[in-house]
Amino acid sequence: MPAEQCDVIVIGAGLSGMCAARKLTQQGRSVIVLEAQSRTGGRARHEVVALDSGEHTFDLGAAYLGTNQLALIQLCRELGLRIDFDDPTSDVIPVRAEGSAVYYLNGERTLASTEAALPWSAFNPLSLFGIWRMQFRLERFIQVMRNHVHDPWNAPNAERWDDWSVEDFLKSDVFFTRLDEDMLRVGVRAVWSVEPAEMSFLYFLWYAATAGSLDTLLDNQGKDAAQGFFFRYGVHDVCQRLAAQLGPVVRLDHPVMRIAQHDTGVTVTTRAGAEFQARRAIVATSPAVSSRIDYDPPLPPDRIHLAQRSPLGRTIKCYAVYDEPFWYPRYSGLSIGNTTPLIWTMDCTVPPHPASLMAFVVGDHADALGGQSDAEVQRAVCAALVDTFQDERFRTPRHFLYKNWSADPWSWGGPTGVAPPGALTAFGRALRRPFNRIHWAGAEAATAWVGYLDGAVSAGYAAADQALTAGL
Amino acid sequence: MPAEQCDVIVIGAGLSGMCAARKLTQQGRSVIVLEAQSRTGGRARHEVVALDSGEHTFDLGAAYLGTNQLALIQLCRELGLRIDFDDPTSDVIPVRAEGSAVYYLNGERTLASTEAALPWSAFNPLSLFGIWRMQFRLERFIQVMRNHVHDPWNAPNAERWDDWSVEDFLKSDVFFTRLDEDMLRVGVRAVWSVEPAEMSFLYFLWYAATAGSLDTLLDNQGKDAAQGFFFRYGVHDVCQRLAAQLGPVVRLDHPVMRIAQHDTGVTVTTRAGAEFQARRAIVATSPAVSSRIDYDPPLPPDRIHLAQRSPLGRTIKCYAVYDEPFWYPRYSGLSIGNTTPLIWTMDCTVPPHPASLMAFVVGDHADALGGQSDAEVQRAVCAALVDTFQDERFRTPRHFLYKNWSADPWSWGGPTGVAPPGALTAFGRALRRPFNRIHWAGAEAATAWVGYLDGAVSAGYAAADQALTAGL
Repeated sequence: MPAEQCDVIVIGAGLSGMCAARKLTQQGRSVIVLEAQSRTGGRARHEVVALDSGEHTFDLGAAYLGTNQLALIQLCRELGLRIDFDDPTSDVIPVRAEGSAVYYLNGERTLASTEAALPWSAFNPLSLFGIWRMQFRLERFIQVMRNHVHDPWNAPNAERWDDWSVEDFLKSDVFFTRLDEDMLRVGVRAVWSVEPAEMSFLYFLWYAATAGSLDTLLDNQGKDAAQGFFFRYGVHDVCQRLAAQLGPVVRLDHPVMRIAQHDTGVTVTTRAGAEFQARRAIVATSPAVSSRIDYDPPLPPDRIHLAQRSPLGRTIKCYAVYDEPFWYPRYSGLSIGNTTPLIWTMDCTVPPHPASLMAFVVGDHADALGGQSDAEVQRAVCAALVDTFQDERFRTPRHFLYKNWSADPWSWGGPTGVAPPGALTAFGRALRRPFNRIHWAGAEAATAWVGYLDGAVSAGYAAADQALTAGL
Repeated sequence: MPAEQCDVIVIGAGLSGMCAARKLTQQGRSVIVLEAQSRTGGRARHEVVALDSGEHTFDLGAAYLGTNQLALIQLCRELGLRIDFDDPTSDVIPVRAEGSAVYYLNGERTLASTEAALPWSAFNPLSLFGIWRMQFRLERFIQVMRNHVHDPWNAPNAERWDDWSVEDFLKSDVFFTRLDEDMLRVGVRAVWSVEPAEMSFLYFLWYAATAGSLDTLLDNQGKDAAQGFFFRYGVHDVCQRLAAQLGPVVRLDHPVMRIAQHDTGVTVTTRAGAEFQARRAIVATSPAVSSRIDYDPPLPPDRIHLAQRSPLGRTIKCYAVYDEPFWYPRYSGLSIGNTTPLIWTMDCTVPPHPASLMAFVVGDHADALGGQSDAEVQRAVCAALVDTFQDERFRTPRHFLYKNWSADPWSWGGPTGVAPPGALTAFGRALRRPFNRIHWAGAEAATAWVGYLDGAVSAGYAAADQALTAGL
C-alpha cells in the first residue's frame, strides 16, 4: 500500500497535538494526526454517566481553567464556546465559593472560608510566621524564574536549585512547627501528584513561574486561580469540537511505531504497518511517552536522557455523585488534607446537573489504592469523605467513578511529567529543540502554564510555528 | 505465517538474557532469544582494531570482574575460559599495579601508590578526618543494607534515605575541607556515571551492599575489587561463547514491539511483524528500556512508574592506543580526577597486545562532549591525558576509539539504571516481581552485584528459575 502523504504528521490527538494540527491547517498546510487510542483528548478524558436527570459528563483527567489562561480561552472562543467568567450561564462554571472549606492537617480538622488561600485560624503564630517566611522566600525565587520561563537552566542559582529537591528546600528553611512545612508538602502533592523528594526545586520554581506564582497554582477561587473554573460540558467538549473541525485527518487507533527522517521529509510507520509521509513531524506527547517511538536516526543523547528523567505523577481522580448537594450550605465541598488519602476535594455540581464531589488521591496514596478493586477504591474514598466532612451521607454515593492514570497504557500517569533533581539543567534544552524534522509539543514543552491545558494549547501552536518557520 | 513456538521467549541477548536462555535450555526447555540489534552483548560490546601487531579487541562497554563475582566466574569456567586470578597467562588479566596513580583533584596533582585506596599524602589532617568519618558512617549504613539486598525498601530508615540524594548526604555530613566531600562525588561519578544529586542515597547504599562494600566498588586493585581484572579477549569472548552454545535460537535484528498475554501463554510480536508464542517471556533489559515494548494487558502501575524512574547514566568510554606503554614504569596508568573531563583512567595493556589506556568521561562531562565530532572527542580526551600525566606523548595515540553510550539507541546510556530519590521505596518491588507470565532480568534486577556483569548473570538465572518454578 503506498504511503499517505501530507505536510505534517502530528503524533498524539491530545489538546496539544490537535492545536498544532489546527494551526497548520489554518495556514493552508495538510496534516494527518495519528492517535494511539480510540479517542481524542490524551490526558483530558471524560466519562458520560446516565442518571435519572439525564446523561452527565465528568472530566476524569485535566479539567480546570482560569481567567489568565489566555491561549486556552482564545481557543475555546474560536471553537464557539461561550467563555464569560462573570456569567454563570456561560460554558465555564466557577468553583463554588459559598460554605466552609475543610483543612484536615495532621489529624486536626479546621474550617475556613473557601475563598481564603489558607486556613489562618488553624495556625499558631509560629506556624504563621514560618509560612509567611517560606512564601516570601519562594515568591522571591519564583520572581527570578519569571525572567527565565524560556530557559530556566540559565537562571541565577539554576545549578544549585536543580541539585535540590523540594524536600531539600523544606529541610533548608527554618520552620517552627510541622504544619508550616506540611502545607508545602500538601501543595506539591496536590499540584504535581508526586512526593516533594521526587521533584527538582528548580523545576518547581520554574513551573510556578510559568503560571505566574505559587498562589495561582494552589488557588481554587478567584479569577486567576489555576482551578477557578471548569467547563460546563467538560474538556471533552473542547476536544470534540477540535476533532470535528479537523475532521477525517484525525486517525484514531493508530499507535506510531517509528519515525524515520531523510533529507526531505519523514516517514511515520504505525504499529499495524501503515506508512505516512510528510515534510515534518510533531510529537505531541509527554517526553516520557515520546520515548516509546523508534527514531531513525536515533534521538540525540540529551533528548533520550530527558525522556528517561520526566516521570509522570501518580493520580487517581474520583467523582462521587449524590442525589442532593446535602453538604450545602455548610460546606463548599473544598477540602485539603494530609490525614486521609484525599489530598484535595472540590465541588463540581452544575445545576441542574447532579450533585457531585471531585476527589484526588495522589502520590504514595495513589500507589497504595492502585492495586485494589473498584469497590475497595470507592469504599476508601467515600470513607475518607465521611471522615473529612463528618457526614455519613458521603458513604453511599448514587454513583462513583474514577480513573487511575498510572494504569493508563498511553499516558503512564498524570497530570504531567516532572523533573527529578539534576534533569532540567542538564537536559531541559531538549524540551523544545527540534531534532531535524521532528518538533515537540505536549504540555511539558510549554513556556506558559507548563503542564496545564493552556500549556498544551500554546505548546501545540509553538511546535506548528516552529515547523512553519523551518519550512514546509 | 504461523507463529513460532517455544517454552520461553527471552527478549534481549545481553549477558542476562543469554544466561536465562542457557539455564532454561539446560533444564530441557525450548527458548527463542529475540535481540533488537545485529549483535549480542547488550551493554557489553567490543570493537576489533587492526594494528601492526594483529587484531585486538577492546571492550567499549562492561569490562571488569573481581574474584568475588561468583556467578560470572562460574559461568566463564563452564564456557571454557581459564579463570585463574593468580596466573597471568590465564584468560583474566589483573589491572596493572606497578607505578604511581595520579589523583588530580581540584587542580592539584598528587601521585600515590596504585594499590592504595586513597592518596593519603594529598590530604591534610582535617580532610583525612572528614574522609574517615564519612567512610565510617557509610560503612555502617551499608552494613544495615546487607540484610536487605532483596528488599532495600524494608530497611530501617529506608524512607528517609530514599528521600535523600547522595548530594544531600554530602550536605548533611560534617566536612572540613572541599576535598573530602569531593572524593565521594568523584566516586559516584566513576561508578554510576551520574551526578550525586541524581541518585537516591538509599539506592547508593543498597547498590554498594549488593557488591559488599563501597571500597569494593571503588577499588581497581586487589582480588575483591570490582575493577581488579579484565578479560584477555574481552567480555565479547564470553558473549560469543554463550551465543555459540545457544545457537540458532538467538535471533538478531528482531526488535520486539509487543507482548500479549493470555491464560496459557504469551504472544510476542516483533517490529517487523513476526510472531512467536511461548508459555512465558523474560524481558532482559534495563527497566527504562523495557518500557519501549507494548504490553497487553498493560503493565501494572508500579512497573510503569519504575520504568519512568530508572534513568541510565551517561558514559563515554574511550581507548587511546599507543605503540609503546611509555608511561611505565613511572605511572600505572590509573588516574582519578575531577579537574579534567576524565573521571578515571586505567591501563588495559595486555602484552603482547598494544599499549593502551582506557578513559571514562561521565555525567555532565559526557553530555558536553556528546555533541562533538569524533576528532574533537579524541582531541579533548588526549589533551586531558597529557594534562593528567604531564606527558606530551599522550596527545598522539596510534589509534583512538570510543563509544558514547548515551547515543546508543537500544541502551539509552550506561552503565546501569539508577534510582532518583523516592523511586526505590515506592516502586522497587516491581524490579523482580513477575507480571503474570512476564519475568524480568537484566543487571538492574539482581540482588548481588546490581548493575555489574555478575548481576546480569545472576538476574538471568533468577528469572529463569522464577519461570521454571511458576510452571512451564
